[in-house]
Formats: sequence, C-alpha cells, structure tokens
Amino acid sequence: MDSLFAQRVKRARRSVLRELLKLSERPGIISFAGGLPDPETFPRQILAEIAVDEILNNYKKSLQYTTTEGKRPLRAALIDWLAQDGLHYDMDQVVITTASQQGLDLVAKTFFDPGDAVFMSLPTYLGAIQAFRALEAELVGVPLLEDGMDLDALEEAISRARAAGHRPKLVYVVPDFQNPTGITWSHKKREGLLEIAAREDLVVVEDMPYRKLRYTGEHRPPVAALDEEGRVLVLFTFSKVLAAGLRLGAMAGPRELIDKIVTMKQATDLCTSSLTQRIAARFMLEHDLSAHVRRLCSHYRVKRDAMLQALEQYMPKAEGISWTRPEGGLFLWVRLPEAVDAEQMLRRALEHRVAFVIGAPFFVDGSGRNTMRLCFSKASLEEIEEGIRRLGRVVEEELAGLPTTQKL
Amino acid sequence: MDSLFAQRVKRARRSVLRELLKLSERPGIISFAGGLPDPETFPRQILAEIAVDEILNNYKKSLQYTTTEGKRPLRAALIDWLAQDGLHYDMDQVVITTASQQGLDLVAKTFFDPGDAVFMSLPTYLGAIQAFRALEAELVGVPLLEDGMDLDALEEAISRARAAGHRPKLVYVVPDFQNPTGITWSHKKREGLLEIAAREDLVVVEDMPYRKLRYTGEHRPPVAALDEEGRVLVLFTFSKVLAAGLRLGAMAGPRELIDKIVTMKQATDLCTSSLTQRIAARFMLEHDLSAHVRRLCSHYRVKRDAMLQALEQYMPKAEGISWTRPEGGLFLWVRLPEAVDAEQMLRRALEHRVAFVIGAPFFVDGSGRNTMRLCFSKASLEEIEEGIRRLGRVVEEELAGLPTTQKL
Repeated sequence: MDSLFAQRVKRARRSVLRELLKLSERPGIISFAGGLPDPETFPRQILAEIAVDEILNNYKKSLQYTTTEGKRPLRAALIDWLAQDGLHYDMDQVVITTASQQGLDLVAKTFFDPGDAVFMSLPTYLGAIQAFRALEAELVGVPLLEDGMDLDALEEAISRARAAGHRPKLVYVVPDFQNPTGITWSHKKREGLLEIAAREDLVVVEDMPYRKLRYTGEHRPPVAALDEEGRVLVLFTFSKVLAAGLRLGAMAGPRELIDKIVTMKQATDLCTSSLTQRIAARFMLEHDLSAHVRRLCSHYRVKRDAMLQALEQYMPKAEGISWTRPEGGLFLWVRLPEAVDAEQMLRRALEHRVAFVIGAPFFVDGSGRNTMRLCFSKASLEEIEEGIRRLGRVVEEELAGLPTTQKL
Repeated sequence: MDSLFAQRVKRARRSVLRELLKLSERPGIISFAGGLPDPETFPRQILAEIAVDEILNNYKKSLQYTTTEGKRPLRAALIDWLAQDGLHYDMDQVVITTASQQGLDLVAKTFFDPGDAVFMSLPTYLGAIQAFRALEAELVGVPLLEDGMDLDALEEAISRARAAGHRPKLVYVVPDFQNPTGITWSHKKREGLLEIAAREDLVVVEDMPYRKLRYTGEHRPPVAALDEEGRVLVLFTFSKVLAAGLRLGAMAGPRELIDKIVTMKQATDLCTSSLTQRIAARFMLEHDLSAHVRRLCSHYRVKRDAMLQALEQYMPKAEGISWTRPEGGLFLWVRLPEAVDAEQMLRRALEHRVAFVIGAPFFVDGSGRNTMRLCFSKASLEEIEEGIRRLGRVVEEELAGLPTTQKL
C-alpha cells in the first residue's frame, strides 16, 4: 500500500516530540515539556452551566450542523474582542476554526503549491512547521533576534528563495511571547515586517495564541493593527485563554482572503462544533473574558517568576548558557553550550525525573541541537523549584562530561 | 492578492448548494433540502448530564488537549460498536476525526498527488467531491445502478484513467443508503468491488454515515467485513446517530494506513475536541447506543413511508419520472424527464414554498440536471404530506411547460 501514498506523506514526519512527551508523562517526573495550560484555570463552573443550558434548551442549534463561517454570535463577540487591540473587522472577515492548528492547515491549503516558500523564524512553532510541510511548502528559516526576526536576513532569504525558483508566498510570525522562545517583537520590527511584505508582495500570518497573556512590560500593537494594505491574516485561539479541549479558534483578515479560507474549510470539516462555539460565545457574551484573562495573567506570572528565579539559583554559571526572560506566554527558552546535545541530555534528565522539550524540532534548518524549551504554565510552584533544581544538576553533569549512573 | 493563492483555490468551487439552502430556510418554506438529522432525536437529557459531569469533575481531561489518535475509551467503545458489524480492529487501527468530513480531507491528503484518480459513483456525496477536489485529485465518475456501482464501467474507467496518465488510487463508496440516492449495494457488488480493488491495487474508502439507519430489508455486510487484504478504510460519524453538532467521527483500517492518517491529522488539527470525545465515549459506555439507534429507525421509518406515500399520491404519473425507495438513511432521489432543469424548477418550487436539493452538484461529470434529492428526516409528517403535494404541483406545471404567475 506504501506505493499509493501521496508524495507529501513520504516527506511528512510525525513529531519527534510525541515519543519524548510520552516518556515525560511517567509518574514521578516533573515535566516542563508539553505546552499545556493549567487546567485549574479553566472556568469549569461557568462552562458547565452554559453547556447544560445549551444542550437542554438550545439543542436545535447547539447539537445541529452550523455554517462553515461559524456561529454569528461568536464571530460578533470575537470582533469586539479583537477591537480592544486595535483590530477592526466586519462579520465576513472572520471565520471560526477548529482551533488555530486548523487555521494553519487552511493557510497552507489556500496558499501553497508544492515548493512555494514560507518564511519562518529560527526557531518557530512546531505546529506551523507540520501544517506547512504537509502541504509541501518550502520552509525557509530566518534567524530570530531578541526583538524579533532578523529582517535583513529575511530580505536576503526572500531573494535567495526566488533565485532558487521558490515562489515567496508568506511570512509566518508569532510576534507576542512566541512558542518556543517567549520572544516578543519590537514595534519597529513589526513595522519593518510590513514594509518588506508590501515590497515583496507577501502575506503575513500573525499567530497570536499568547498575546493576551502579558505579565510585564509594555503593550505592543498587533502587526495586523499596523497593516494599511490588508496583507495580514490573524490567527486566534481559545486554547490558552479559555479551554484547550474545546478546539476552538478563529481567523480574521481581508474579506477576499477569508472568502477563500471558508471555501477550503468547507472541504476540510464542513463546520466547527456548534456546541463548543455556543459555549464560547455565551461565555464571551454573558461573562467577562477580559477579567478571566487578568486572573490567568496573575496566575502564570507567579509561575514564570518562580522559574526565572529557580534558573538563576540552580543553573550552572557557565559560558554559553543563557535563557530568555519572556514578558508573557507559557514558555522560556534555554540555550546551552554548542557542544551539548539536548536530546542526549534529555535522557539524563529523565533519569533525574525532570523533562523538557528539545529545541531542534522547532528549527526548519536542522540547527538548535543545543537548545530546549521550558513550559512554566502547568507545574506547581513547588514542582518548578524542584524541577529546575534537578535540571541544574543535569546540566552540570552534562557540562562536566561525566556519565551518570545515579538513579534518583 | 489573488496571484498568491494556490492552484487548488483557483479550481475549488464553494458549494452551489449553499446559496440555494439559504433560500430554502426562508419562513413558510417546507424544506426537504438540507441533509439534517431531526434535532428532536438528539438525546439531550443524557448528553447534558454527561457534559456537566465531565466539565465539572473531569476537567483535567475533558477541557485539555488530548492525543491525535483520540481518547482511548472512545476508540474502545467504537471497536465494540464496529464489531457488531463484523468489523474487527485493534486500538491502533482506529483514529478519531472531527466528523467524517475531516476523514475525507485526511484521505485526500494521504493519497492524492495532483491528478491522481479517484473513482466515485454518479452521483456521489458532495462533501467527498469537495474534499478530493481541494487536494487536486482527478474525480472520475462511474454510473450508479440500483444495486450499486456499475463495476464493468468502473473497470473501464480505471483503464481509461491510467491510459490518460492519471494514477488510479482509490474508489470512494457509500454502500448503505447513499447520500444522495438512498441506494444500497448488493452483497455481490460489494465482493466485486474488492476483486477489482485487489486486481488494480486500489484502496477502497467505505463511508458509512447511514449504515445503522436501516428501516426495512435485509442486512448486508460492510465492504470492509468482506475485505481479506486490508484494502478498505471505513469512515464512521456520530452526526446521524447521536448529534451532528459534536463534529465527531472516526476512521478505521489497516494499521500502516491509520498511522499515516494520524500523521496527517496531527498537522491538520492536532486533536479532536476532548469534550465532545468524552461526551460520546460516556454515552456509548454508560447508555445504549443500539437502543437509541433503534428508536431513530422507528422515527425515521415513518417519515420515509410518509414521503413515499405522498410521492405516489401527488407526483404526476408521467414518463421519465421515477424515484428511489431506500431501505434506510435520510434521502430519496427523484429523476425527472431529461428536459427538466431542476435548478430552474427549484425557483418555481420556492414560489410554491417547497424546497429540495438539485442533483447536478452530486455528479462529477456535469450530468444530473434533471435530478433532485429529497431529505425526509427533518420535516414533520404533516410537512411531508403538504410539501410533496406542493412539489407534485410544481412538477406538473414544469411538465406542462407552463409559466406560472400564481403566488401561493
């Protein structure tokens, strides 16, 4: 049967992280691996009340098919929500998606013929790599600096891709508290990106799963809010601000583009769950999502601070070790000396009963073997301190080049 | 921005039915158009009880991300369910999907390079046409007879496609109470299809949304139950037997194929909603889905009978008019004299305040302009009688070739 598969299947790789994540779920292991929101933050009481009312009293809508574009009350609520951020859309500029991973799939379907070039930072979100690779795009990596993508390098990469026969189509960015690094783009870089997109006639896909989870520092406008040409498509998800298990998100952007996205979505899943759409819509209309997000920020800020403090305390003070200090989101990023192979080190870490995610899969150019991502959202404060203490010892051992047989 | 779209977008057509369906939803119109289950059949009391318990007491699972393959209890319940039909699968042969439209999208991604041939009956399910066209497959139509696909024509079509440089990949079938015709394949045709698939090295995709909704006649085994070579992939959905708004389905088949499907699904939506999966799993584990389906059959059988009786009574007795008498499912299919254009006639029907779905979009070869699909599941018995009475008059007027100015 192998001979019947499409070319894209032969190239596709299932995430190498999956097996590693399974290992990290063994009992006794403190895991900073999976990028999971803290389930204690899910507003379960309210969600349960809404769900029961929707199922009992609105079953003709909540349990039936709905339109491909999505429920109008939910789109209306999202329009108001995005307007708080300077983003102004009409109803036909918003489509509900089965979370933002579907948004990425629809972007890939809408834009990529095989070999078309998409520009992504090094590192970038793994789900975007998978979605774009599945539709056979040429993934071009561009270095990520402390204040956003290296825009000179982006321009060079575009020229090189074009010269190599790859049609440049879009730039994918996560400008706020990026997964995996936690890095946020400066205002200047956001403007610079739009200038390049205009010059090169590219679409910008702005993925904003963590945008509202800012704990410190100053507000930056979304790239889309600075866009005067209608080149930016934004991806929103409820996964980090309400509940990941709903699988609910949205895309917004230029009308003619959303129209194409809707056509592709119709072929992909007809419509997103009416029930989860109704639940989210009523949460937004009858409760205060902004207040809920403020509570989330207080909750996660403490965890981020705890992890940063533990890193200061327990990580070896050696050359080549550094980490980001994100102003929001769920992740921070550790760079180790070039000689360290994080995948090898993970095996040692699991012996020490602590887990992280290796950084390499987030790089489309095969680099990043000496990096790792730490997620601070799900572990308790005690686990954060103890887990980073263990991790510090792992790094120490790794640096010493000593094999360990010590089972903790 | 048009120049940036992928080729598939330029070829993709949004369903022509959408606009027509919108017209059919105007107040006062009796609609046999949308293929919607009757919302009164959704077991809302039980679903509400489960939902509230899952959200309040199992939120760490029901509101969190889950695996791409899907929740194990749901897959286990589905394995038992499919076994009733002679279908035997292990856990790693089943993947939960965001309803069966996603199954079709994943099939398309897994098998089709542009121009690869898929064989589908004339007519066939519109959602499959859209999913396969979106991934740029070559859609090859094969006549559908009263007892299933014309298998001689299938063999010829395969040869012709191969000669024309299209690589034959798979045959898509809905062997039980097909959408749109209501036709069920004979046992012999099911076996014949497998013989051809073996000889030609093709995969068979067996879509079974209506299979359990049999009202009369004798049980036929699924094609997959006759498959000794592991060539059949089955698509199941909860949309017609539990609630469409959950957007929940499954695929089952050979292990190595499901493995590829899971890889593609990971890139497509990471995972299907944990909440809807948990709700369906508990419904299956704690309640009796078979008993529920028996109630559905009693409910829909009466509606089917009412529609068949009304057609006998009200449709003109003219040459060239015929309709199917399905033993299950939600649809029946009316063929009108060749000269009738159903799309034109629909405008007249809407004036008479009755709606149907035109048949042409279900044909990949552009034929079928004189056909229409009638859905009997959602209208009340009174609406069925009155709607078919109106439709009979519409057809009569159409046949008489008379313009009507009569507004009812």
